[in-house]
Amino acid sequence: MSTITASSNRQFRLAARPHGMVKATDWELTTSALEHPGPSQVLVKVDVLSVDPAMRSWMNAGKSYVEPVEIGEVMRAAGAGYVVESQDPRFQPGDAVLGRLCVQEYALVDGSELEKVDTSDTALSAYLNLLGYPGMTAYFGLLEVGRVKAGETVLVSAAAGAVGSAVGQLAKIAGCRVIGLAGGPAKCKHLLENLGFDAAIDYKAGDVRKAIAKAAPRGVDVYFDNVGGDILDIALTRLRRGARVVVCGQISQYNSTERAPGPANYMALLMNRARMEGFVVFDYVARFPEAMEPMRRWMREGKLKSQEDVVEGLERFPEAVQRLFEGANTGKVLLKLTETRGA
Amino acid sequence: MSTITASSNRQFRLAARPHGMVKATDWELTTSALEHPGPSQVLVKVDVLSVDPAMRSWMNAGKSYVEPVEIGEVMRAAGAGYVVESQDPRFQPGDAVLGRLCVQEYALVDGSELEKVDTSDTALSAYLNLLGYPGMTAYFGLLEVGRVKAGETVLVSAAAGAVGSAVGQLAKIAGCRVIGLAGGPAKCKHLLENLGFDAAIDYKAGDVRKAIAKAAPRGVDVYFDNVGGDILDIALTRLRRGARVVVCGQISQYNSTERAPGPANYMALLMNRARMEGFVVFDYVARFPEAMEPMRRWMREGKLKSQEDVVEGLERFPEAVQRLFEGANTGKVLLKLTETRGA
Repeated sequence: MSTITASSNRQFRLAARPHGMVKATDWELTTSALEHPGPSQVLVKVDVLSVDPAMRSWMNAGKSYVEPVEIGEVMRAAGAGYVVESQDPRFQPGDAVLGRLCVQEYALVDGSELEKVDTSDTALSAYLNLLGYPGMTAYFGLLEVGRVKAGETVLVSAAAGAVGSAVGQLAKIAGCRVIGLAGGPAKCKHLLENLGFDAAIDYKAGDVRKAIAKAAPRGVDVYFDNVGGDILDIALTRLRRGARVVVCGQISQYNSTERAPGPANYMALLMNRARMEGFVVFDYVARFPEAMEPMRRWMREGKLKSQEDVVEGLERFPEAVQRLFEGANTGKVLLKLTETRGA
Repeated sequence: MSTITASSNRQFRLAARPHGMVKATDWELTTSALEHPGPSQVLVKVDVLSVDPAMRSWMNAGKSYVEPVEIGEVMRAAGAGYVVESQDPRFQPGDAVLGRLCVQEYALVDGSELEKVDTSDTALSAYLNLLGYPGMTAYFGLLEVGRVKAGETVLVSAAAGAVGSAVGQLAKIAGCRVIGLAGGPAKCKHLLENLGFDAAIDYKAGDVRKAIAKAAPRGVDVYFDNVGGDILDIALTRLRRGARVVVCGQISQYNSTERAPGPANYMALLMNRARMEGFVVFDYVARFPEAMEPMRRWMREGKLKSQEDVVEGLERFPEAVQRLFEGANTGKVLLKLTETRGA
């Protein structure tokens, strides 16, 4: 474990509230003097940050799930890193920790806001992906809200994304037929060849409605909706009796400046006695421990593969966010700050 | 019990598939010779018919919950009446029966399709209202799909209608605060004065969104949606965390010729971890018996009042249907064919 030598800290601060799609100038890269821990505080060298769809809503002034980031404030991000200095007796230099580390090289955080994690059998980044919010979103969304059963047909949108790729793999583990919607032939190939999906539909090519009908001739039991918009509306037309629509993310809407139309086919819910339910993973935080054991086991068994889309270097943070919102990523978008552990 | 003297039977037959709102010329009133029962058949003198929103969908060629009525066929209707002749040993002249009696003076039905009912403590018409589909819709929709709990706030649309007035009364029995949406001051007065609603909102007057916010300052736990359209979209903006939207009827859409827009505010489901679920009462037929005992008891105790909007005379059937779709009714629309029992 090297000791800390830096005396400054580079940080991305919110510079403007975006209108529509985020752009690089919405943040400013600043340098400030590195502060050292006061009582109960811990200084963490940030190793990897989660680049998250929710970031877009944090940049708006209005209330979303959580408070917005203020102009001039360091951009919020969940992250993982290693303790370099600690005034909290629970943490020692070198400990691997998780927390709201924000977009910066070093995070000075109260020890009560950090969680120590075990990296003996998994990479630190797994805690931002399969063992973090994306994995927990897939687990509780599919199993608790979607109540998926063996033999059912599961359709998932943004299937090559962090949540979608976990949903698809978990649905296969649950014994379902799994159909993924993704943008472009490369992602579709990835779903079929690397993740074991039964069918993959390129939503940018051809008639999506017909493609779903072909891939799910008896209809869809669970639609795990990560995108909203037109795809949701189309999916509603393919529901089976008693289907469940898990409304998870609505990434098609996050950068939208116009009020999007609602899903005109919602009356399919009535015809099919189907359910559409909004789902926010934060409500399940207390139950994360019960998901960790099976998730770790499936990872060890190779049934669940961590899909990561890594952008390297703090200064490339805006690029990583744009990559996410343009849907260019395959798997969880991570911003990797350090090249080697604790360096 | 008078014996049958008629030799002819007047019937309303479907004459045209309506485009948009139904009109009187969509049916033809015909007279045919009265047929007498063959083996296992029963001849029923129709006393009262249920005038039902579902009639509109039966008039369309497309598949809905059930098969369409064919052109030239006697218009489908649920009804109640008295047996006049029987070749089924389970039925005797004078027995009160329920069945798909259709819009006619006499129905010749196979005994297996009739249900004998007990009118010792209730009017025969109750079996088409509180003890029939509207009451069962309210009961299972509110309690099973809506999972309403004491202390919650329930909003119901078309609250002066057959289902809505039962939903409101059942929600009061369940210990809820009940807000009704209805068209016009007379209906609103009726909800408050006769049915015990806590608040009534005239959706034709003023800002409905503000009125709901005022009547339910903490938001709505269960929205029982009988209408769809704009009212559903507005209601979505007033949901509380964990709210349930019971999508029951969508009467605003039944006569519509244009594809209605979807509820643009459906993203409120995500924000509020809320659920929108389609519900068709036919799925609960096997469980009707468990609802009958409490419903009868609440009726005897005066907690549940049967709301009936009676149109008298077979020839006024088209008028009764229009009354329903124009929302002119208060309570269940019934077409009463006979003035006195068994006459």
